[in-house]
Amino acid sequence: MAEISITKARMIIRKALATGRELGLKPLSVVVLDAGGHVKAFEREDGASPGRFGIAHGKAYGSVMLGMAGKAQMARAEAQPFFMAAINGVYGGQVVPVPGGVLLRDKKGAVIGAVGVTGDTSDNDVIAAMAGIAAAGLTGEA
Amino acid sequence: MAEISITKARMIIRKALATGRELGLKPLSVVVLDAGGHVKAFEREDGASPGRFGIAHGKAYGSVMLGMAGKAQMARAEAQPFFMAAINGVYGGQVVPVPGGVLLRDKKGAVIGAVGVTGDTSDNDVIAAMAGIAAAGLTGEA
Amino acid sequence: MAEISITKARMIIRKALATGRELGLKPLSVVVLDAGGHVKAFEREDGASPGRFGIAHGKAYGSVMLGMAGKAQMARAEAQPFFMAAINGVYGGQVVPVPGGVLLRDKKGAVIGAVGVTGDTSDNDVIAAMAGIAAAGLTGEA
Amino acid sequence: MAEISITKARMIIRKALATGRELGLKPLSVVVLDAGGHVKAFEREDGASPGRFGIAHGKAYGSVMLGMAGKAQMARAEAQPFFMAAINGVYGGQVVPVPGGVLLRDKKGAVIGAVGVTGDTSDNDVIAAMAGIAAAGLTGEA
Repeated sequence: MAEISITKARMIIRKALATGRELGLKPLSVVVLDAGGHVKAFEREDGASPGRFGIAHGKAYGSVMLGMAGKAQMARAEAQPFFMAAINGVYGGQVVPVPGGVLLRDKKGAVIGAVGVTGDTSDNDVIAAMAGIAAAGLTGEA
Repeated sequence: MAEISITKARMIIRKALATGRELGLKPLSVVVLDAGGHVKAFEREDGASPGRFGIAHGKAYGSVMLGMAGKAQMARAEAQPFFMAAINGVYGGQVVPVPGGVLLRDKKGAVIGAVGVTGDTSDNDVIAAMAGIAAAGLTGEA
Repeated sequence: MAEISITKARMIIRKALATGRELGLKPLSVVVLDAGGHVKAFEREDGASPGRFGIAHGKAYGSVMLGMAGKAQMARAEAQPFFMAAINGVYGGQVVPVPGGVLLRDKKGAVIGAVGVTGDTSDNDVIAAMAGIAAAGLTGEA
Repeated sequence: MAEISITKARMIIRKALATGRELGLKPLSVVVLDAGGHVKAFEREDGASPGRFGIAHGKAYGSVMLGMAGKAQMARAEAQPFFMAAINGVYGGQVVPVPGGVLLRDKKGAVIGAVGVTGDTSDNDVIAAMAGIAAAGLTGEA
């Protein structure tokens, strides 16, 4: 399985948003990218600020392109700010290196895409993402 | 009503995709933007080429930003190619002036967003978009 | 098989370049992209002009992103110049819509990447690309 | 000798990748640029993340354009982050100032290109690059 299906992508988004409602989080936005970093599906809840697509996308896009999830990206950005700044030059400013970007892996461990969640704290964004990924029967690396 | 709700956006996307399946169209991608031209929801069917988000987005984005749907944009592009080229300079190259970009209007006629569909011929893209918009109880201007 | 392997990519490039030498073509440049449009391998022959990476890449990149090979892209560019200009805005100016961009398909017909060849006439570029693709046991759509 | 030949470029890439396999490094990506900073050859191993071309390229490109290899660039970035940020403005965001960008010199000391390696730690990337450069009979400055 090399591509995340639209059915799986929908399951991830629905469960991530439902988790946000259950936990009383702020309105969330969730994107699912495929293994090439291209948008498969996205939803922004009512009440979320208009620019949330770009943030959700940036969390997931950097994860795919670097093969490194949000937490590892943030650690690198804290250790070498100039490196993540340079990475953003390479990728056209499309990388948001904080938690909430989660790599999707299939059963063999291959990356098949990424999820990006934004709206509440980065830690809560991760909780919502992981709930969605579990509901779809996939493994997430946050 | 100034903002398209996520519930309505989902209805539009589901019915547009279902219409594509009923008519035997190629895999479709559908985006819904709000009244500010910002992404509300998107889905890309399995089998669609990876770059389809940008095309769906460009059809809808130009519609909102110019207040002019895809067919009118194409007419203008044919009459004055330099004008649409200049528009694309203004909007960072994000406008795709062909049918498939459809303005969403509420009952008073106010623009509340736009839908962009890509994947089959431009005419079939419009058919799918209009079916989705009708299912959501809204009025589309193609 | 969803990703073109580096072994296959090398076979394509070597045979494409060898074909250019056999036919006495000008120095060629050959890129192989994966199913997400990302560079897998590239070689530029001695004597080729320095900017050839961008042209080879642009032929292959547009093929993957649009799911449409170079000949179909050129037909569309001739019929609707403003459409291909808009597409280039969406994809950051990275699309070169002429023959020499060839889609790679696996045995089930799924796109697994693309080859881009530049250096001689577009028709000869295609001949070299197709020879390389055949040598790797894959099917090309020019 | 002002241009790195494709034969030498292949030798560098092959030995760099072989070194990575011998040392058990993560999948590597290796680019060779000519004296003008233009891509001569590139290979990305199976399993490497899709965005690795840009990083390998950025390491080598900055080396050629500044005449300063990766280690010197990193020292400058640490001492004057604003300088490397400005440099990236000048060069369109295409400079990645960390080890793994290695200048290629001929026997007289003239710069004839650069190698960029990415995939493992920056230090291991340098080891792979230097092994490839030695195998091609050239001198590297890391």
